[in-house]
Amino acid sequence: MTTAVAPKHTSPFLSVSKHRMEALSDGVFAIVMTLLVLELKIPELARNVSVGDLGRALAHEAPVFFSFAITFMFASLFWYLHHVLLNFLTEFPRKLIVLNLAFLMFVSLLPFSVGVQGHFLRNPLAQTIYFSNQFAIATFLLLQWRLAHHLSVVTDPSGNDSRIFNVRLIALPVGTVLAIAVTWVNSIFSYYAFMMVMILSRAYTTRKYRKN
Amino acid sequence: MTTAVAPKHTSPFLSVSKHRMEALSDGVFAIVMTLLVLELKIPELARNVSVGDLGRALAHEAPVFFSFAITFMFASLFWYLHHVLLNFLTEFPRKLIVLNLAFLMFVSLLPFSVGVQGHFLRNPLAQTIYFSNQFAIATFLLLQWRLAHHLSVVTDPSGNDSRIFNVRLIALPVGTVLAIAVTWVNSIFSYYAFMMVMILSRAYTTRKYRKN
Amino acid sequence: MTTAVAPKHTSPFLSVSKHRMEALSDGVFAIVMTLLVLELKIPELARNVSVGDLGRALAHEAPVFFSFAITFMFASLFWYLHHVLLNFLTEFPRKLIVLNLAFLMFVSLLPFSVGVQGHFLRNPLAQTIYFSNQFAIATFLLLQWRLAHHLSVVTDPSGNDSRIFNVRLIALPVGTVLAIAVTWVNSIFSYYAFMMVMILSRAYTTRKYRKN
Amino acid sequence: MTTAVAPKHTSPFLSVSKHRMEALSDGVFAIVMTLLVLELKIPELARNVSVGDLGRALAHEAPVFFSFAITFMFASLFWYLHHVLLNFLTEFPRKLIVLNLAFLMFVSLLPFSVGVQGHFLRNPLAQTIYFSNQFAIATFLLLQWRLAHHLSVVTDPSGNDSRIFNVRLIALPVGTVLAIAVTWVNSIFSYYAFMMVMILSRAYTTRKYRKN
Repeated sequence: MTTAVAPKHTSPFLSVSKHRMEALSDGVFAIVMTLLVLELKIPELARNVSVGDLGRALAHEAPVFFSFAITFMFASLFWYLHHVLLNFLTEFPRKLIVLNLAFLMFVSLLPFSVGVQGHFLRNPLAQTIYFSNQFAIATFLLLQWRLAHHLSVVTDPSGNDSRIFNVRLIALPVGTVLAIAVTWVNSIFSYYAFMMVMILSRAYTTRKYRKN
Repeated sequence: MTTAVAPKHTSPFLSVSKHRMEALSDGVFAIVMTLLVLELKIPELARNVSVGDLGRALAHEAPVFFSFAITFMFASLFWYLHHVLLNFLTEFPRKLIVLNLAFLMFVSLLPFSVGVQGHFLRNPLAQTIYFSNQFAIATFLLLQWRLAHHLSVVTDPSGNDSRIFNVRLIALPVGTVLAIAVTWVNSIFSYYAFMMVMILSRAYTTRKYRKN
Repeated sequence: MTTAVAPKHTSPFLSVSKHRMEALSDGVFAIVMTLLVLELKIPELARNVSVGDLGRALAHEAPVFFSFAITFMFASLFWYLHHVLLNFLTEFPRKLIVLNLAFLMFVSLLPFSVGVQGHFLRNPLAQTIYFSNQFAIATFLLLQWRLAHHLSVVTDPSGNDSRIFNVRLIALPVGTVLAIAVTWVNSIFSYYAFMMVMILSRAYTTRKYRKN
Repeated sequence: MTTAVAPKHTSPFLSVSKHRMEALSDGVFAIVMTLLVLELKIPELARNVSVGDLGRALAHEAPVFFSFAITFMFASLFWYLHHVLLNFLTEFPRKLIVLNLAFLMFVSLLPFSVGVQGHFLRNPLAQTIYFSNQFAIATFLLLQWRLAHHLSVVTDPSGNDSRIFNVRLIALPVGTVLAIAVTWVNSIFSYYAFMMVMILSRAYTTRKYRKN
């Protein structure tokens, strides 16, 4: 995967190889995905607790487990999108480094925002923190993509794959902003609002670009 | 290990390289194996505690240590099986990504399910949670294997190595389901039931395929 | 990135490849960047807490969040400088291993020193611990750089890129020492002192070396 | 680093590449080195605590800091020895996998055994746990080395580098066993006993093999 092409935009010494940026990113994602399990606490009960009591104690953790699973999916999605973005790049220009590190910083905040959301599931502020985190991640991904176009380091920028990816990257911040708006009306519907944007954007790209 | 063969099933931009899927997986496994040690708590005793008191306090942690060791072995086993599975693949088709991420999600739940089992060692519900986690991991491994066959990305799918691996991957979910059933009768025997299935499946493959 | 050149300074068996030193370093950096989020505690409030109460509880965490963000940036900066340093090296001599591991040791102390600083933001001792940690990291980076010159394993050591990097590596320990001095006069100005040294050193290199 | 040589000892599908074994090992080492910092607790004091009180509170952590530093060095040493061992191997035979995973398991116990030792610094049982952990790590390294010789996968097994490495790998378990014996007489001298074995073994190899 590591391209041997000489970078155009920076001194070879001051540039970062795609390989090491991937290694750091994969490390951060692996930790973020796994740290979430620390939110799942073992119930403090006697060692000879009855099945019923243990079951009830674990049932209290269901919302935490639910947000763990949902967020594992989001972290996976961002990992995949980040991977696809790097697939498109012919090199990793120095100017993208800061955007990528900001992206990773908000990725590493996921366990916190998920913990807050998992504890206060129907609190619109908790939902806002959660979706704002996702918004920041998605935005720094989109900014990397746009800057990469601007610096002309994207392979086949007008191809169908590139255009589909573009729509997807725009749909994410739009969906999270909509989710934040909806959560202040009804916190339960925020997820559905987000999902609706995702599904619509996918339907749009399928209709528009898959035909050709 | 990273194959340079052009993927058949997906656009090269939207596909994930075996290399990065390995990097993410190795990261998750490394963390899961290491996080377990957090279950081992340092006894809260005076700094000048006697040898006898420290010994007694640490002896209380023996079951936790035991489940740490057992689970390190299970995580190692799954890491190895995942490695072998990727060895067989000529490419990493996009459709496998979701199955692989679901596999990793249940791998990252291991510290929790092991913690529950370590705290409530003779509770059948705790044992069920533990073996259900293993069942989910094993099943997503098996599903990847089956889908890879379906997509024709398996090297030498009718060879002996492939058949032996197939039996092993089927034995794991069977063994965990049996362990869950047995734990509700006698929680102590659940491990033995699981181990019995493993040993039988190994004896079967040795007899059937190693001869040729 | 991994150079296949035969090392000059050590037996090939006893030497460490750049690749594995990078892998260990990237792992440590990924963890350090992510561990910081553990300092952000989820408020212990009722699940049906009001938006106002949750907001006030989270506002108390603002200084911790602030130092998390600042330190993510510092860890990112050190990761980048470490990357650039390795870019300059034609091989990784055995004598650098100890310096690099000492560098990583102080990098892994960052979550602690940041935690201390985040909790006692206006305490000059807390600030001193924080900047001393940064000083140690920067110094071990500088020592690696100097030793690499001494061992003649730096590519183009008298080139402009190399000279600019040299000024930057010297500016960091100077800036942190100044910040430590300033914090005992006025803890608020310590950051500004540090930043001033960074900006001045950058202005100096731009004026002196970018022209040519 | 990844050798493309066809493995002699196992089916290519069932074998593990050196590359992935390195990746898992580097991950575990990076986490173990970094987890230790979790032993360093931020003092629970008022935010406007005086410099004197904060200093006294942090001074109480000196032994923990000391064992963090010592153990970072040990983990670094084992990482380096593991790296050298893999440098010598022409392939990674399947039979070594279990030994390597057992090695990693005891590496991941380091934060626990160090925590115990750091809390009960003059308790011979705590010292015994600490050095037993080091003994287990060293022994599984030695067993890998011996088995690799037995399987004839070591490059230049009778060369000087190989012989020096052999002496070093034998010195480690000897030194830890001596340290355990000494700790029951005087816990302070256990480190010196260990260090003495290390220095003697180094003097021996320098005298015997460096001359040629």
